[in-house]
Amino acid sequence: MSDWQVINGGVTAPKGYQATGITAGLKPSGAEDLALILSDVTAIAAGVFTTNQVRAACVDYCRQRLEDQPSARAILCNAGQANAATGDLGWQDAMESATELGKALNISPEFILLASTGVIGKRIKMDALKAAIPQLVSTVSAEGGEAAAKAIITTDLVTKSIALETLMSDRPVRIGGIAKGSGMIHPNMATMLSFVTCDAAVSPQLWQEMLTRAVNRSFNQITVDGDTSTNDTVIALANGQSRASAITNMGAEAEKLEAMLTEVCISLAKAIARDGEGATCLIEVQVTGTSDEVSANKIAKTIAGSSLVKSAIFGRDPNWGRIAAAAGRAGVMFEQEDLQIRLGNFLLMDNGQPLDFDQAATREYLKQRAVGEYLKDDTVLITIKVGDRIGNGKAWGCDLSYDYVKINAEYTT
Amino acid sequence: MSDWQVINGGVTAPKGYQATGITAGLKPSGAEDLALILSDVTAIAAGVFTTNQVRAACVDYCRQRLEDQPSARAILCNAGQANAATGDLGWQDAMESATELGKALNISPEFILLASTGVIGKRIKMDALKAAIPQLVSTVSAEGGEAAAKAIITTDLVTKSIALETLMSDRPVRIGGIAKGSGMIHPNMATMLSFVTCDAAVSPQLWQEMLTRAVNRSFNQITVDGDTSTNDTVIALANGQSRASAITNMGAEAEKLEAMLTEVCISLAKAIARDGEGATCLIEVQVTGTSDEVSANKIAKTIAGSSLVKSAIFGRDPNWGRIAAAAGRAGVMFEQEDLQIRLGNFLLMDNGQPLDFDQAATREYLKQRAVGEYLKDDTVLITIKVGDRIGNGKAWGCDLSYDYVKINAEYTT
Repeated sequence: MSDWQVINGGVTAPKGYQATGITAGLKPSGAEDLALILSDVTAIAAGVFTTNQVRAACVDYCRQRLEDQPSARAILCNAGQANAATGDLGWQDAMESATELGKALNISPEFILLASTGVIGKRIKMDALKAAIPQLVSTVSAEGGEAAAKAIITTDLVTKSIALETLMSDRPVRIGGIAKGSGMIHPNMATMLSFVTCDAAVSPQLWQEMLTRAVNRSFNQITVDGDTSTNDTVIALANGQSRASAITNMGAEAEKLEAMLTEVCISLAKAIARDGEGATCLIEVQVTGTSDEVSANKIAKTIAGSSLVKSAIFGRDPNWGRIAAAAGRAGVMFEQEDLQIRLGNFLLMDNGQPLDFDQAATREYLKQRAVGEYLKDDTVLITIKVGDRIGNGKAWGCDLSYDYVKINAEYTT
Repeated sequence: MSDWQVINGGVTAPKGYQATGITAGLKPSGAEDLALILSDVTAIAAGVFTTNQVRAACVDYCRQRLEDQPSARAILCNAGQANAATGDLGWQDAMESATELGKALNISPEFILLASTGVIGKRIKMDALKAAIPQLVSTVSAEGGEAAAKAIITTDLVTKSIALETLMSDRPVRIGGIAKGSGMIHPNMATMLSFVTCDAAVSPQLWQEMLTRAVNRSFNQITVDGDTSTNDTVIALANGQSRASAITNMGAEAEKLEAMLTEVCISLAKAIARDGEGATCLIEVQVTGTSDEVSANKIAKTIAGSSLVKSAIFGRDPNWGRIAAAAGRAGVMFEQEDLQIRLGNFLLMDNGQPLDFDQAATREYLKQRAVGEYLKDDTVLITIKVGDRIGNGKAWGCDLSYDYVKINAEYTT
C-alpha cells in the first residue's frame, strides 16, 4: 500500500493547482497573512470542521457551501483575525471576502471556501483584505505552495508542507498538503488548519468518507494541550487533473488513494505536534490489542494528552506508572493483567506487573530524543498492549515544558 | 437547607467515632503514614471508587466487601505504597492487613475497609504495618481526627479536614470528613482519598445514593491535571449514634442530611484543588442555563480543566476567548449567541459578543486572588450562562504554573 514517494511542492505538487501567500497587512507583525489555493478546474471538495459550539463565521460558511455542493475552485485563508464570536458582521465579512475574490478570479463566490486564524472576537480587517486581492490573484502560481504554507501560520515556528506521489492506472497521482498548528503565544490562537490538494478523480461521497477517516487517524489523534479551537478546519480538494481513472467505489485503487491521503494527514499532524508550544520532543503512542481502532485510538490519545506523562517525558523520566494510570482512565475496558508498556525498546511493564528494567539506559534513550537537534531522533515511542485482539491505533503529542506555561501565561491582553 | 454550623474535630466530631494516625515506617521520610478510623458500633458504609481500569488491591477489596454487606467498623489507610499493579501478592497483603487489624480490634476482618496511597507498583511494607498495629489500636481516640488527617497525606502541603453539625429531630447530627489530594511530587502519587463519618441513622441504599450524588457534585468536579488515579476512594460511614430518628426514604430530613454531606464533600474537594501542585489560586466555575445539571457540570469542568484557561489565570490575564472556546468544546450543545461570560463581577462577553470591559480593573481582580496570602481571597470566580434553562453546575480547579511543570518533571526515578 505504501508505494509512494515524497516529492516537492506541497499543495501545488498535484497537477492543476496554483497557490500564493502575501502580506495583506492583517497581522501587526507585517508577516505574510493571506493565502490562496486555486484549482484550474472545479474540484471535488470535502471538509472536516471543529466540533466546538463556538465557531468562526468561516466554519459555518464552509459547512453551508459544502452541503449545497461538494465542489470548489479556491480556498482563501487569512491569518491575524479569527472572525469567531463576531456575530452577524463576521458573517457578512465572510460573504464579502468570497464575493470580492470571486469577482477578481471571475468565478462564482459559491466555489470559494474560506478559513481564518487569529484572535477570537476580532473581525477581519476587510479594507486591507480587499485591497490585497489584486496582488493575491496576480501572484498565484504553480510554484506557490510554500508561499501559501507560510501565509497561513501564526505562532508556528516552522511551516508544515508535504507532497506524495504514486502511480495509478500508470499515471502519477499526487496529494499535497499544508497545515498550521495550534500555536497560542497570542491570545486565543488555538487554530488547526490544513488544506489538501489531490489530482485524482474521485466521487464526492467517497472523497468525504476518505477524508473523515484520514482526519480521525491523524489530526484528531494529536494533542498539544487538549483545547479544541473555534476555527479548526481541514479541506481537501480533488480535481481529476492526473487523468488517472476515476475512483467511484472502494477497492484496491481507492484504498491506495486513501492510504496516501492518510499519510499526508499524519505527516502534517505530526509536524503540528512536534511544533507544539515549548515542545522538546514528539511523543508517539502506539496501542494494540483492543477490540477496535476507536478504543485503541482513545487509549493512545489519553496517554499522549496526560499532563503527568508529558511532564515526565520533559524530565526524561521513564515513569511507567503514569502511563499505566493514563491507559486505565481512557474509558476503555481491559484487564490490568494484560497491560504491557514499552518505552522505545525497553519493556517497563508486562502482564500488569512492573519489571526491573535498566533505568539508566531508558533515561539515555529519552535524553537522545530532541526536536531540532542535529543527529538526534525527535520521537519518544510509547508502545502499549492491552490484550490480544486486533484493534490498534496511534496518537501523537509533545512534552509539557516550562516554556508552555511561560508562553501561555505571559501574554498580556 | 443550609442551617448547619462548622465545628471542630473532623472525622471524630460525630458521636461514636475514634481515630488515630501514627508513624509506622512506611514513608521513607519518617512522617505519619498509617491511619485508623473506628466506629464504636457497626456503621452503614457507602463507597465510591476510581473508574480507572488499573486499580489498587484495596479498591477491589473494598468493592467486594461493600457488595457483600454495606457496613463496616473501621477504615485502615496506609500512605507510602499504593499497592496498585502489584498482582496477587498485593491482594494477599490487603487481606492480611484486614485480618491482622481485625485480630487486634477483636472484630471480624470483613468489617474493615482499606485504602492505600503512594507509589504505584510498590507493595505495602507489611512487616512495618503489622508491627505498628498495636500502637495504632492503643492510640485510637475520640480526639484523633486531626492525627488521621495528617497520616493519610503524601505530598499535600496542608491537611484537609472539616466537620458540620445540624439539628434533626431536636438532636445534633454531625458529619465529619478528611481528605488527601492528588499531589504528585513523587512518582505516580495521583491519589484522591476521602473518609466521611456521620452519626445519623440512615438506610444503606439511601446513604450510598446520597454519597454518589455528593461525590458527583464535589470530588468529581475538581481537576488538578485531569489524571485519574488507580487508588481514588471515598468511603462514608453512618453509625446512628446521634440517636436522631432513622432516615429510610427521601424527604425533608433526608434532603437536609444529603445537603450537609454534599457540603462536607465540596469543602474537602475545594481544599484539594486549592492545594493542587504549584497552584497560586483556586478557580471556581459556575455554569447556568443548561437543560440539566450533568451538562452544566460538564461545561464547568471543561473550563476548570483547560490548560489554556489555567495558564491565563496564572498569568492573571482576563482571556475570555479561551474560556469561550473551552465552554464550546465540552460536548454540550448551546447557541453561541446565548453565551455570557463573567470574571468576578466583570462582564466580558454577552450574547456571544465580546464586550469592551475594563481590562485594568479585571486584571487587578485577578491579581488580588492568591492562595495563602493574608488579606487576599483565594478564589477566581468564572461565571458562564449558556441559555435560560434550569440546569446549573459548578467545578473547581487551580491555575497552571511553572511550579506544576517543575514538580512533575524533576522527579528522578
